[in-house]
Amino acid sequence: MPSVCWLVPRVTQVMIAKLFYFLLISAVALPTKAEEGCHQLRSTAPFKIALFADLHFGEDAWTHWGPLQDVKSIKVMSSVLDDETPDFVIYLGDVITANNIAIKNASLYWDQAVSPTRARGIPWASVFGNHDDAAFVWPIEWFSSPGIPEIRCRVANSSCSGEEECHFEGTQRLELMKNEIERNTLSYSRYGPKELWPSISNYVLQLLSSDNPKSPVALLYFLDSGGGSYPEIISSAQAEWFRQKALEINPDSRVPEIIFWHIPSRAYKKAAPWFGIHKPCMGSINKERVATQEAEMGIMKLLVERPSAKAIFVGHNHGLDWCCPYEKLWLCFARHTGYGGYGNWDRGARIVEITEQPFSVKSWIRMEDGSVHSEVVLSP
Amino acid sequence: MPSVCWLVPRVTQVMIAKLFYFLLISAVALPTKAEEGCHQLRSTAPFKIALFADLHFGEDAWTHWGPLQDVKSIKVMSSVLDDETPDFVIYLGDVITANNIAIKNASLYWDQAVSPTRARGIPWASVFGNHDDAAFVWPIEWFSSPGIPEIRCRVANSSCSGEEECHFEGTQRLELMKNEIERNTLSYSRYGPKELWPSISNYVLQLLSSDNPKSPVALLYFLDSGGGSYPEIISSAQAEWFRQKALEINPDSRVPEIIFWHIPSRAYKKAAPWFGIHKPCMGSINKERVATQEAEMGIMKLLVERPSAKAIFVGHNHGLDWCCPYEKLWLCFARHTGYGGYGNWDRGARIVEITEQPFSVKSWIRMEDGSVHSEVVLSP
Repeated sequence: MPSVCWLVPRVTQVMIAKLFYFLLISAVALPTKAEEGCHQLRSTAPFKIALFADLHFGEDAWTHWGPLQDVKSIKVMSSVLDDETPDFVIYLGDVITANNIAIKNASLYWDQAVSPTRARGIPWASVFGNHDDAAFVWPIEWFSSPGIPEIRCRVANSSCSGEEECHFEGTQRLELMKNEIERNTLSYSRYGPKELWPSISNYVLQLLSSDNPKSPVALLYFLDSGGGSYPEIISSAQAEWFRQKALEINPDSRVPEIIFWHIPSRAYKKAAPWFGIHKPCMGSINKERVATQEAEMGIMKLLVERPSAKAIFVGHNHGLDWCCPYEKLWLCFARHTGYGGYGNWDRGARIVEITEQPFSVKSWIRMEDGSVHSEVVLSP
Repeated sequence: MPSVCWLVPRVTQVMIAKLFYFLLISAVALPTKAEEGCHQLRSTAPFKIALFADLHFGEDAWTHWGPLQDVKSIKVMSSVLDDETPDFVIYLGDVITANNIAIKNASLYWDQAVSPTRARGIPWASVFGNHDDAAFVWPIEWFSSPGIPEIRCRVANSSCSGEEECHFEGTQRLELMKNEIERNTLSYSRYGPKELWPSISNYVLQLLSSDNPKSPVALLYFLDSGGGSYPEIISSAQAEWFRQKALEINPDSRVPEIIFWHIPSRAYKKAAPWFGIHKPCMGSINKERVATQEAEMGIMKLLVERPSAKAIFVGHNHGLDWCCPYEKLWLCFARHTGYGGYGNWDRGARIVEITEQPFSVKSWIRMEDGSVHSEVVLSP
C-alpha cells in the first residue's frame, strides 16, 4: 500500500494497519540518520497528535521532590496516551529543566521524558523550549551554611558522586537533539538547517494520505523559539527559511500548514482574552499574562499572510490553555503536562486531530484524570 | 640572603637587589605547580602594589571597537607600570569580558591582559570577577536582519572562522586559572581549596622581610566574590576557610591583613559617602551606587572583628574610586583601569604601598596621564 514510502523505519512493521503516512520534507540530517523517513498511520481514524508541553524533567534533580515529579509526569503521559491512543506525539519544549541538571549529559532526563511514548511504539517530534538548553544555575542557598549538598551524578552504569565528577556547564541543544535522534528510530525530530544555528529545532514534516500519496494532507512546521543559551526569539533568518521553504513545497498555499513552537509570539498577547475565556476563544484556564518572545522578527507577518497557515501551538505559559483566533489564524496554548515547572493547575495534554476529506483540525484537552474539555474546531 | 626562600622562581634571578620576599602560605596546587613560591623585593623602598581592575579584555571581540579598547588598556597598564615601577600587581577581577568571547579558550584574552606586567618581569596575582567566567551571551541583534556576523575565531596558529569552529560555552574559572598559572612563572595566583569550588581564587600570600624572615610583614588574602557562572557571593564556606586559615597562620592577630576581591560586600553601601567625597573618605569619583554582592554570608563579620584586618580592596564599580573607613577597617575601591567595560571616567590604577617598620599602608591613584591623586594613609 505505501507506495512513496521509502526508508521505512522499523516501527512501521508494527503499524501496518495505518493508511496515512508521514514524509519528512526538510531537515539537516546527521550522516547516521537518513534525511527522509516515512510512517504509516491508521486507516479509518483521522490523524491524532498529542502535545506534551513543559514536562520539565530533571527539575530539582538533587532533591526528593524533583525525581518524584518526574514519576508523576510519566503517569500523566501514560494516562493520556492510553486514553487517546494518538498517532503522533509532539514534545513542545521545556522537556527538561536543564538549569537544575548537574550531569554532563542532560539527555538522561530527556530520555525519561520520551519513554512513555517510545514504550507504546508511537512516533514523535520535538522542539526546544527555553529550559532545555541552559547552563546549570547554582542556587544561592548552596553558598550559605550548610553549603553545597552532595549531588548524585550517577549516569547509566558509571557511578560517580561529588563535585569532581559532576558537570555544571549544561548540555547544548545540538547534543540533546543528536542524542534523541540517534537513540530513537521513532523520533522525527531534526537538527534544522545549519545556517539557523544556534536555533536548532527547525524542520517541517509532511503528512501524506495513502489514498493519494502525491497530495499532502498537511504540513507540520516546527520552529525553535530560543531561550536558555541564546535569546527567546524566532529570528529573521528563521522567518526567511520558512518563507523559502513554504515557497518551495507549498507555493500556491494549497496544503494546510500547522505550526509548533514553544514560546508565544507577541501576537498571543493581542489575541489573549481579558477576564475568563469567552467565545470565539476556547479553553479552561486563563490565569496569567502571556510571557512572549523578546521580539517579533517577521515570522508572524509571513504566517498571517498565508491562507494555508491554520494554527500555531505553543507551551511556556503553564497557566494558559486557550485557543483564540488572530487574523486568519488560530493561536493555541497547549496544556501543562509535567509536574515539573511552576503552577499547580491540573495536568493534561492538548490533542490535535487532523481530518483529510474535508480537511479539518479539531482540538481538545485530555486531562490526567481522563476527562476531556475545551473542544474547538480550528478550521472551517 | 633569602634564607626561608625555597622553590625560588626563575624570576628571582633578575630581582636580586630586593630584600623583602613573598612566601605563598596556602593554596591547592596543581601537580605541575609547586605549592610554595617565594619572591624577593627591593631593599630600600616599601613594598608597592598596583591594582589593575576591570580591564574587560575581549569585550566586543567581533567588532573593530573591542580590540582597539584592549590596545588602549595595555597602554594604561604600561604607563602605570613605568611611572610607579611596582613590586607586584594584583588583577582585581573582570580581567576579561567572557560573555563577549566566542572562542574555546578565553585565556587568549587573559594572556593579553597580563602581558604588560609579564613583559616587565613583575610578579602578579589575580582574583576572579563576575565577567571572567561566563557563557557567551548572544546579542539579540544577531537574530534580526542582517543576522549573525562572521566571527573570527582564530586562535594561536590554528586558523578558523565561522560558526562551526567557534565556541559559545565559555571558559570556566578553573581552566582560566590553570592556564594563567601553568603558562607564567611570575603568577602567584592559586586555585584555592577544592572544597570551596566553584569559587576558585581563594588563597593567601605572606609578605616576608629579609631582615627577619620569620616575622611576616603582612598577609594578603584573595577571595573569589563569585558571579558569572554562579551567584555573586562570598560563601559561608569561604568565610569559614578564612576563619580557620587566620587562626592557623595569624592566631594572635599580630600580622596585618589586607584583603582583595572583586565585588563590593554590602558593607560598602553603608560606608559609601553621600554627595561627593569628604573626609575621612578619600577619592575622586563617586558617580554611581555601590553594586554589591547578592548576600552577606559571614566574611564581613569575621573581618570587622579582627584587629589585624586593615583594608579591603575591590573593583566592579567603574564610577567609584574612594576609600572610606568602616568599623576598624578601610573599604577601598580600585580605579577602573581598562577601556573595556562601561563608563568613560579617566583610566588609572590604585597603588597600595606597604611599609614595614613602623607598619603602614598608604594608597593613591596613578592616572594614565601620569598624574597622582587621592593619597590616603590606611593604617595608624
